[in-house]
Amino acid sequence: MINKLVEEIQKKNAPIVVGLDPMLSYIPEHIIKKAFDEYGETLEGAAEAVWQYNKGIVDAAYDLIPAVKPQIAMYEQFGIEGLKAFKKTIDYCKEKGLVVIGDIKRGDIGTTSAAYATGHLGKVQVGNKKYSLFDEDFVTVNPYLGTDGIKPFIDVCKEEKKGIFVLVKTSNKSSGEFQDRIIDGRPLYEIVGEYVAQWGEEHMGDTYSYVGAVVGATYPEMGKVLRKIMPKSFILVPGYGAQGGKAEDLKPYFNEDGLGAIVNSSRGIIAAYKQEKYSSFGGANYADASRQAVVDMIADINGAIGR
Amino acid sequence: MINKLVEEIQKKNAPIVVGLDPMLSYIPEHIIKKAFDEYGETLEGAAEAVWQYNKGIVDAAYDLIPAVKPQIAMYEQFGIEGLKAFKKTIDYCKEKGLVVIGDIKRGDIGTTSAAYATGHLGKVQVGNKKYSLFDEDFVTVNPYLGTDGIKPFIDVCKEEKKGIFVLVKTSNKSSGEFQDRIIDGRPLYEIVGEYVAQWGEEHMGDTYSYVGAVVGATYPEMGKVLRKIMPKSFILVPGYGAQGGKAEDLKPYFNEDGLGAIVNSSRGIIAAYKQEKYSSFGGANYADASRQAVVDMIADINGAIGR
Repeated sequence: MINKLVEEIQKKNAPIVVGLDPMLSYIPEHIIKKAFDEYGETLEGAAEAVWQYNKGIVDAAYDLIPAVKPQIAMYEQFGIEGLKAFKKTIDYCKEKGLVVIGDIKRGDIGTTSAAYATGHLGKVQVGNKKYSLFDEDFVTVNPYLGTDGIKPFIDVCKEEKKGIFVLVKTSNKSSGEFQDRIIDGRPLYEIVGEYVAQWGEEHMGDTYSYVGAVVGATYPEMGKVLRKIMPKSFILVPGYGAQGGKAEDLKPYFNEDGLGAIVNSSRGIIAAYKQEKYSSFGGANYADASRQAVVDMIADINGAIGR
Repeated sequence: MINKLVEEIQKKNAPIVVGLDPMLSYIPEHIIKKAFDEYGETLEGAAEAVWQYNKGIVDAAYDLIPAVKPQIAMYEQFGIEGLKAFKKTIDYCKEKGLVVIGDIKRGDIGTTSAAYATGHLGKVQVGNKKYSLFDEDFVTVNPYLGTDGIKPFIDVCKEEKKGIFVLVKTSNKSSGEFQDRIIDGRPLYEIVGEYVAQWGEEHMGDTYSYVGAVVGATYPEMGKVLRKIMPKSFILVPGYGAQGGKAEDLKPYFNEDGLGAIVNSSRGIIAAYKQEKYSSFGGANYADASRQAVVDMIADINGAIGR
């Protein structure tokens, strides 16, 4: 799957991923109205609106992008119905040939991490049968519990030829409270980065590892150091756009082959029609606004990294 | 809810919580057979078996225990159907008067953490209506992203009078890889503990805070230090029993009032009938074996802490 991700990035010349993180407040009135007319102001209605909204964006932009990153929290907030929309979104994106990165930030120990890995990347055994569950291609994983928490994911990834992105340095302001603390002269995130590089050696694709890292766009100096510490790990870069990360800061996240990073934008793409720049599209054409925002983002990033 | 937890612990004289972490391999043959006869070897069948197994244990032991801790990963591994069983288990345990600690170890930033908090502790707004979702009383939260990740949970907890347990020092072997690293002369888990104490000041119950901590039973020396750093935080203690933690090691996790900690056992209780000690119960009476294991655990812990 890391090979497919690399191929798709090259084919589409687009080292980006669209974060499908829907909030009801982003969804245009006509979609909300239709869903509520059909299902009422219910959880089913909300989930239907989320799904139709996602579908519109995917239909409008799938030919331009290699991957999507649905943020499960945005679905989990609607309970079971929301999670059905999460699953529907994953299945649809895969039908459209997209690589799906489930932004789930799970992490536990031993059999518990194994259960998460099964639920999101693997297959569960029931009697003599096996079932796929959410079935993302990659998921994000939290490293706080150490190797015990990561290893069960890697085991499932090996079976399924899938991958993970481990949180190393997150894009938020308070990420430094623990991640930047100095240990033997180096910040914690560097030490986590070293573990990612080691874990990655266990499960290599053709040129990159199936074990990648999350490093926020908002910390380019740190991105530069981490790029060197984890030369074979793909870096998933959140924080571009709405969170303040700029294209000119992104060069250090890439390797000399022009690969090695994939930049995420969520709100900046999916709610593009709400920005002044794209307001002429209006809510009715929100998906076209998202497509235009994808085109602009690709140009912005390729320009800045000299691709 | 922290007040209710304290009251229930006192009333039942049992500072323990039963981890409802079902694996199909734990479930007695007669339950599996009935569920598969009805639903086939399907995800629905697996979820039904999990639910019936949980129900049996809860029915047998609810009068002895203050709380349960379902581990969501064990349900998530069966996808949507598993999560329905998770929700059914929560609702049933609340009907039985139990405090429900959702072991979800979520954690993200800003609106994303807010979405998790909504999905598990709060209510989501859909049009003019509000809905409860999974509706646990407490959840566990991962601190790696810092205050940005924790604050949205505390905000929802304030509205709902609910609480969280933040991972500080986990019970697993590799927890030390990051959690024990020395920063300014002190291990990271102590620094996280200090944040927990601070976060906890923002949302106090009568005697304890709504912001608790997870500290593994397998590290009693660290438990002793953390007890002092977070005097008003309840400590959720995993790792007793199957993971190797012993009752005599648990005293330092408690305050002088005999409160301040709640010790979890999962496999040791729910799969008690598989242990030699309780094997005479047999699979048919697995729930009675679980009840006896609860009685023994309470005596073991109360004896050791001199309660």
